[in-house]
Amino acid sequence: MPKKQTHYDVIVIGGGPAGYVNAIRCTQLGLKTACIDSWRNKKGQSSLGGTYLNAGSVSSMAMLESAKIYRLLNQDLNKHGIYAENISIDIPQMVQRKDKIIEALSHKIADTFSHHKIDRFHAKARLLNARQVEVMPIDHSAAFLLEGKNIVLATGSSPIELACAPIDNELILDPTAALNLDSVPKKLAVIGAGIIGLELAGIWSRLGAQTILLEAQEAFLTLTDQQISREAYRIYTGQGLDMRLGARVISTKKGGRRVAVEYQDNDGTHSLRVDKLIVASGRKPNTDSLIAPEANIELDENGFVFVNENCRTTLPGVYAIGDLTLLGPMIAHKGVEEGIFVAEQIAGLHTPINYKILPSVIYTDPEIAWVGQTEQALKAMGENIKIGIFPLHASARAHTLDRIDGMVKIIAHAEKDTILGVHIIGPHASELISEAVLAMEFSASSEDLARTIHAHPSLSDALHEAALALKKRTLHLPLAK
Amino acid sequence: MPKKQTHYDVIVIGGGPAGYVNAIRCTQLGLKTACIDSWRNKKGQSSLGGTYLNAGSVSSMAMLESAKIYRLLNQDLNKHGIYAENISIDIPQMVQRKDKIIEALSHKIADTFSHHKIDRFHAKARLLNARQVEVMPIDHSAAFLLEGKNIVLATGSSPIELACAPIDNELILDPTAALNLDSVPKKLAVIGAGIIGLELAGIWSRLGAQTILLEAQEAFLTLTDQQISREAYRIYTGQGLDMRLGARVISTKKGGRRVAVEYQDNDGTHSLRVDKLIVASGRKPNTDSLIAPEANIELDENGFVFVNENCRTTLPGVYAIGDLTLLGPMIAHKGVEEGIFVAEQIAGLHTPINYKILPSVIYTDPEIAWVGQTEQALKAMGENIKIGIFPLHASARAHTLDRIDGMVKIIAHAEKDTILGVHIIGPHASELISEAVLAMEFSASSEDLARTIHAHPSLSDALHEAALALKKRTLHLPLAK
Repeated sequence: MPKKQTHYDVIVIGGGPAGYVNAIRCTQLGLKTACIDSWRNKKGQSSLGGTYLNAGSVSSMAMLESAKIYRLLNQDLNKHGIYAENISIDIPQMVQRKDKIIEALSHKIADTFSHHKIDRFHAKARLLNARQVEVMPIDHSAAFLLEGKNIVLATGSSPIELACAPIDNELILDPTAALNLDSVPKKLAVIGAGIIGLELAGIWSRLGAQTILLEAQEAFLTLTDQQISREAYRIYTGQGLDMRLGARVISTKKGGRRVAVEYQDNDGTHSLRVDKLIVASGRKPNTDSLIAPEANIELDENGFVFVNENCRTTLPGVYAIGDLTLLGPMIAHKGVEEGIFVAEQIAGLHTPINYKILPSVIYTDPEIAWVGQTEQALKAMGENIKIGIFPLHASARAHTLDRIDGMVKIIAHAEKDTILGVHIIGPHASELISEAVLAMEFSASSEDLARTIHAHPSLSDALHEAALALKKRTLHLPLAK
Repeated sequence: MPKKQTHYDVIVIGGGPAGYVNAIRCTQLGLKTACIDSWRNKKGQSSLGGTYLNAGSVSSMAMLESAKIYRLLNQDLNKHGIYAENISIDIPQMVQRKDKIIEALSHKIADTFSHHKIDRFHAKARLLNARQVEVMPIDHSAAFLLEGKNIVLATGSSPIELACAPIDNELILDPTAALNLDSVPKKLAVIGAGIIGLELAGIWSRLGAQTILLEAQEAFLTLTDQQISREAYRIYTGQGLDMRLGARVISTKKGGRRVAVEYQDNDGTHSLRVDKLIVASGRKPNTDSLIAPEANIELDENGFVFVNENCRTTLPGVYAIGDLTLLGPMIAHKGVEEGIFVAEQIAGLHTPINYKILPSVIYTDPEIAWVGQTEQALKAMGENIKIGIFPLHASARAHTLDRIDGMVKIIAHAEKDTILGVHIIGPHASELISEAVLAMEFSASSEDLARTIHAHPSLSDALHEAALALKKRTLHLPLAK
């Protein structure tokens, strides 16, 4: 790793979506930029893209795609008049496909870095003060200093560990290891029925694992609109996930290549023996050894960096973006937007982010996606709302795909008709939400959506129909008058 | 079929998307409505939904879904680490699945009709004058008259026949028969590489037919943006379609359970022997025996009904919608919008359609969808434009799906930045276009799309990136500075 230069306009620490986008946007704006990232892939090489690419949504989605195909073969093939025998599975090859996808995408980021002449360091970094970063190469060559007029912290987050279930990545797995198994566990438990737990459980249950989710909370997907959560619970359970809510794991014990899990719920104490246990109990910001104490940057008790609405830390010239802050949820596109915002800010532009219209996505199958506020939140605020719902069993396109589970729900202000929230569970929800985000960006009314022409047949027409339903004039569903 | 009553506020002739939507919307607005439809399904029963449902996009899409799965099994399974042996196919069962989907959806329309108390007649109809319709039941019971204050013509269109290739639905097939074969033809030719020809060719070639498309025009998909057409040609050819442009069929001859097809191109005369020949050479409006001569409604030389911008024919109180007019392309959602528009007009509302932002969709795989104007049309008008392109090989989501062929192209006004056209070829293009339609509905600029948060990873982010590319600030693709 040649030490290219030591003075930069911007030093970015972290090469995940927040960091790499920030670095790219900075150079587009004429700022000389360095990016320090420490991720090592299975070959021990640098791999830009952070958790998002290397062990998060993209990896999970690549595995889910294979798992969906495997389930299709085992369950739904014959209704198409297609038959196959001796269906078998080679998990290492499936994982290899995922790894190749990651590698290709990571190389693309690296190519873009080269194109923009971003100096890239495969190293750990430590912020010393408002201008200096200590760089500690992964290859153990000598540490050195870089100086930057601006420094952007973007080191992301990592899984929270549980004292009662210490990760060994043999029997008790973190989410990264859970995407890299070499065979399908016969019986699998997942601690945490949050986004990551659900995504992982959905993959391995499709591949044949008897899968049990243990969720400490009594409620399910609490941030999601509760009608969507209930529908999700119904669908996932129907797919074979064994979901146990209010189930607090109190101990684990390894023995004989299996794990005994003890948990408590309202009925008392229960125990399970499983072949693998995945711990997916949330994520914490990666600030552990990121900041020298004398740098004087304020963190909260959980390690999140305090920032103002412009992503500025308490140290002038130092920014924090992505999973490091509590400005928004831990999702890739929140980091991407902050990466752009901070780069433009450094270049003298002011292009603030409207966090209220940040889409949330759960990459299960079916997907869940939403933007704006939930029914329960709006009701708690005393808002006067109207609701329009269109179930996918009334969608022609959903029928052609055999995917009639799910719905689109639109919430609008009862008098002003402004769209306040759009909630989707169904195939391609992550794509369909984009129209809803744009609608909210334009402060659209439900009438605007109802008056916009949608392709027939399409799933996106379900948004149109939900908007029509809100006005009691849906076309493809009888409604009580 | 009981003769329910004889006087209506609205009589709708035709139960396809234009007609059934019109009838539903009329009753929602308090108008007493009858709908006369003559479609007979394989069981000889009434089946609402018109060509769209019974023999068009929905049917084709249902079959394509099965065909995609079959190809996946035969070509792309092993890279997922999934193996299967003795893959076989039962076409009658595949067709049966399609028929069941049609039946379910048609029943849903019928249920909605019942809910709204729409009187429904399974019959042919003839417009006698501005107030009277002659109803000729399909069951050959006695004809009768209905009187309506308003009459809406919505009988749709049917395939154009070619003198040189007379349909027998044994060897020479119309598009309906082409979705109801009982085995895979070894060798298949399709006359016409338009939307329907491409959709049908894509299905049967995936199911194993050696498929040759004979297109009389030298150019391919001429209404589509030509860059997208070229990409489509490249992709389809790569999938194994044998596309012959400038190939004008001059004769066909049946013999020995096969068809000999003679065609001419710039190199001279050629001949082919195929097992089946599909004729997909466009559609004509169904006005043949729809209107009594004395009714005095003006048609053009091709049988299209003359209407003004409000879908009013030359006879007061009589409207024509959907494929019967030249107000827009022959696509289902054009008919749907006109159905709503005319119902609201009859009820005294004025809610005109903006035909300029009607999405067009080709349901091949990958799909093609666009809204607004093409590059070639804008250049011909001398418009000063900017273009942003994002190829799917730079999309993370596309990589996880192994679907990296395709692109999103956004055209905006060079100074005003208003979006003038969005063109997509790629998976789920029919869904992704909905965001572009809404953007154009709001006269959005490319900057508006560039500033809207898109989920990561998603295909819809390709729209975002194309908007960024237009400003030379794409994030996931190195661009020449």
